[in-house]
Amino acid sequence: MKITGTFLDEISYDIPHQNWGEREWDDDFAAMKAIGIDTVILIRSGLRRFLSYPSQVLHRAKGCYLPPVDLVALFLRLSEKWGMTFYFGTYDCAECCDSPEREIQIAVDACSEAWELYGDSPAFGGWYLTKEISRRNKFAVDSYAGLGRHCKAISGNLPVLISPYIGGIKSCDERPVTLEEHEREWSEILSAIQGAVDIVAFQDGHCEYDELADYLRINKNLADRFGMESWTNCESFDRDMPIHFLPIKWEKMLLKLEAAREAGVSKAITFEFSHFMSPNSVYRSAGNLYNRYREHFGL
Amino acid sequence: MKITGTFLDEISYDIPHQNWGEREWDDDFAAMKAIGIDTVILIRSGLRRFLSYPSQVLHRAKGCYLPPVDLVALFLRLSEKWGMTFYFGTYDCAECCDSPEREIQIAVDACSEAWELYGDSPAFGGWYLTKEISRRNKFAVDSYAGLGRHCKAISGNLPVLISPYIGGIKSCDERPVTLEEHEREWSEILSAIQGAVDIVAFQDGHCEYDELADYLRINKNLADRFGMESWTNCESFDRDMPIHFLPIKWEKMLLKLEAAREAGVSKAITFEFSHFMSPNSVYRSAGNLYNRYREHFGL
Amino acid sequence: MKITGTFLDEISYDIPHQNWGEREWDDDFAAMKAIGIDTVILIRSGLRRFLSYPSQVLHRAKGCYLPPVDLVALFLRLSEKWGMTFYFGTYDCAECCDSPEREIQIAVDACSEAWELYGDSPAFGGWYLTKEISRRNKFAVDSYAGLGRHCKAISGNLPVLISPYIGGIKSCDERPVTLEEHEREWSEILSAIQGAVDIVAFQDGHCEYDELADYLRINKNLADRFGMESWTNCESFDRDMPIHFLPIKWEKMLLKLEAAREAGVSKAITFEFSHFMSPNSVYRSAGNLYNRYREHFGL
Repeated sequence: MKITGTFLDEISYDIPHQNWGEREWDDDFAAMKAIGIDTVILIRSGLRRFLSYPSQVLHRAKGCYLPPVDLVALFLRLSEKWGMTFYFGTYDCAECCDSPEREIQIAVDACSEAWELYGDSPAFGGWYLTKEISRRNKFAVDSYAGLGRHCKAISGNLPVLISPYIGGIKSCDERPVTLEEHEREWSEILSAIQGAVDIVAFQDGHCEYDELADYLRINKNLADRFGMESWTNCESFDRDMPIHFLPIKWEKMLLKLEAAREAGVSKAITFEFSHFMSPNSVYRSAGNLYNRYREHFGL
Repeated sequence: MKITGTFLDEISYDIPHQNWGEREWDDDFAAMKAIGIDTVILIRSGLRRFLSYPSQVLHRAKGCYLPPVDLVALFLRLSEKWGMTFYFGTYDCAECCDSPEREIQIAVDACSEAWELYGDSPAFGGWYLTKEISRRNKFAVDSYAGLGRHCKAISGNLPVLISPYIGGIKSCDERPVTLEEHEREWSEILSAIQGAVDIVAFQDGHCEYDELADYLRINKNLADRFGMESWTNCESFDRDMPIHFLPIKWEKMLLKLEAAREAGVSKAITFEFSHFMSPNSVYRSAGNLYNRYREHFGL
Repeated sequence: MKITGTFLDEISYDIPHQNWGEREWDDDFAAMKAIGIDTVILIRSGLRRFLSYPSQVLHRAKGCYLPPVDLVALFLRLSEKWGMTFYFGTYDCAECCDSPEREIQIAVDACSEAWELYGDSPAFGGWYLTKEISRRNKFAVDSYAGLGRHCKAISGNLPVLISPYIGGIKSCDERPVTLEEHEREWSEILSAIQGAVDIVAFQDGHCEYDELADYLRINKNLADRFGMESWTNCESFDRDMPIHFLPIKWEKMLLKLEAAREAGVSKAITFEFSHFMSPNSVYRSAGNLYNRYREHFGL
């Protein structure tokens, strides 16, 4: 089970910036390509006041700063150069949200603007709805449904991806979810977003390693039932260490990829290559993880 | 608005040591020089029991350890070599303080000793009073006034610098300060230390990026009113990330430098070059920040 | 007082993984050798579900995962190549422990298995009992006694090492221990484990630097009284910084080594070379510490 996609963590929530310019990003796309990555997913196009592209919509609606570099244009250029499919991640207002309805409208308008600006790039291949949930959540489900449908409608039905998390022992949820609760609630959620979302890639880092296979099987079955694709988001950072966050131990990544393979998941992506798995990362253990990964798969 | 000065964070409070020797420091002064830095400011000459130079005064009064290397001598030597002006930072007793009067006396004696030891270096160009405050604080103001006057008196009126912080949303203060409180209290403080302090370089990292311009304008006006110089201390580490602390995102530094330029601040210094902005830093994103900075300013 | 031994921190508790393969470990043994290290101590052969070697005993008893690489075999191979003595560290169930009796039995069986698998290596030179305590602790003392005797019995009396900590101001203990309490309790503990433990290497990082000499003297006297060897475990990471943990400042390490020399300690080991003191470490300040150490000792 090889990793063939990665998030691009710009604008970052809690992962420190690497301060890369165009040359460094180009080098990193080359390193991705070398291990077979064909898909890059912008984790979010904006967070609070920071933007990855000069969005007039978000500048006006949320007071966002206009960025010194248009990262979306850069990522699309590099995706074209390196033969990658690019997913555009939506805006995240975080704790600066107004009413749910207004936030959905702003996100809808920002997606329309993004499609205007970048929709003619042959690399623009899908949408990523940035909100991460683990349990029933009316606002998120409404947002997935509304925003997903809009994105598909304006883009000739490009696929829409979400990447929720399992409310397990390593989540911040008050109490770990049970397998039954997880299955029941995600059955409801997927039913509510059918037609708006095409791919569900659960994060694989919030439960114990020996619990993962069961969750992956449930996730696969649920996706099948609702006509969606099931990917795994194989986290390449380590949730078990006190420094939040550094690259994961190779053995742990391997355990998780094995569990995904056994569950019959169709594609593995990772959060994320450039900090945690890249020879270009500021963290040297990321380059070592890259080498272990390549050795294992003979790449 | 270019950065032309930096703190030297030895002895460090909360920034991990890089374990540099003379060669590494020499390389770093070269890297500073290459982007136009002409001023280096020792953040403190001692903290608790650790010293940057073999101070008999502090060894006797506070039980400080005599250090294996005389960093003050080293920094002065490198300042002479690279054409920098060196500011000597005072001793910080932190939570090991005795009575305020005694602490001021010890600091006064240590400054006299430092001037005896190093005052003949042509690079010795000023004093930095190490205490950092955000609001009215009788001990600090007394200390600034007493220590600042003493330093100027013994050194032929060399300039005295302080670098307070804004009690904003990102400070640990119980409640963020308002612009009005900030202006009122700093008007009182500057009035009380007139003649003892020449330069005020507020740290720029404790408020939101869009609040900074207002604070910088107030700070500039206050300094003008009391006949002081107004610098900005443009922090090169990121206060918004869970790892405390790693290099700042270039976009954020640029926003802060732009705000300082618009406020008419006369000089920008940073805390600090060697960990957070240097190609020699143990943090690789610091070298990337250096490259982004050079590209932007064509250096 | 030179450092001639180091722990190998696999499987790690709270230190992020470097993701080294055989080549990287080989390079690191070379770097150890270059400064005179002759002893390597596996800190633990397993922790919770993760193992350093394919232990059927622990796989069955504790549901441990079988690892992709046999690190014990690798470390023995490299110890033979580089002329090191290897100490095998016992299994740590951490908070996943069953009854004390059962845990001791599992550890005993795992040590027998390890001796079966690796006992014919000429580098296998001792045992390390992985539990770290600071104060009286019946379970730990019973475990030291039972496990230590067993290890010695099966291996022709190979030496057994423990590395407790001082319950000082930097420990997580509720209240710092006093010198008198430390001496009284460790007198009882060493009395109870005589014949089962040969070497006591207290960690040197939990008290203030100026308190260390007194503790080291007590530890040396106690070891002498009970016919044990007294080593110091000179921690090479910094306990005084908010990031837990990065390499220690050279000055601090030097203070601690000086205190050990004065106390007449017979050998200094460190926790641990590969992350915190190695030119190969992912932390660049570790390589700088290595350089400062070499310069100081003319190595």
